[in-house]
Amino acid sequence: MITGDKFQHDFTVSDEVYTGFLDTFHDHNPLHTNKEFAVSKGFQDRVMHGNILNGFLSYFIGKLLPSEDVIIMQQDIRFHLPVYLNDVLSFSAVIVGVYESVGGVEFKFDFTNTGGKKVAKGKILIGTI
Amino acid sequence: MITGDKFQHDFTVSDEVYTGFLDTFHDHNPLHTNKEFAVSKGFQDRVMHGNILNGFLSYFIGKLLPSEDVIIMQQDIRFHLPVYLNDVLSFSAVIVGVYESVGGVEFKFDFTNTGGKKVAKGKILIGTI
Repeated sequence: MITGDKFQHDFTVSDEVYTGFLDTFHDHNPLHTNKEFAVSKGFQDRVMHGNILNGFLSYFIGKLLPSEDVIIMQQDIRFHLPVYLNDVLSFSAVIVGVYESVGGVEFKFDFTNTGGKKVAKGKILIGTI
Repeated sequence: MITGDKFQHDFTVSDEVYTGFLDTFHDHNPLHTNKEFAVSKGFQDRVMHGNILNGFLSYFIGKLLPSEDVIIMQQDIRFHLPVYLNDVLSFSAVIVGVYESVGGVEFKFDFTNTGGKKVAKGKILIGTI
């Protein structure tokens, strides 16, 4: 893994993912579970939990890198636009720094919806173990 | 919600949470699923996914605040120490800033294990909707 390496993966916020997240973490806030409430707040439908995207990041780091000998050290995310059920998100990441002295690799990433809008972006720092 | 307001909640990384996270996001990296591998890397057992803690943050913001009319805008976390299955984590958060002009509220938080060690800390910025 070297600076400039790029990664891409499509993640779908399927009903299985949404229901699995709800059943695991019990965040039944009405914004996420009640369409009428969400619409009353100006959204087109129930807004998916932002932390579903953080679950996708876990899969990216744990399963999609060239090495599985890694652990997440820091993770920052900014949410720009709402994500809805069944949205397909194009995830892109690029390595922006490699710190060999401490075995660290830093990524910048973003998630883009099928409308071409960036819904979230952030940074992850991993360590090699 | 005003600056200085404090919140506390205990979260348990139960088998239901661990299995639910795995079944939802499929991050079967051996550090999280193979005790022999994790021990070979210097850990005492399988290391729980850091993003399980981000799921707990979703529940905190969505269900434990005085108002449910909120949405997460930014979320940053640093992982300091490994979390293991069945660990009980004491979550503490404090409001460090209220930005009335944009309806923003900023929290600092940490998770502490039963040994009194801080396993993770970070910041969340929410918006009121």
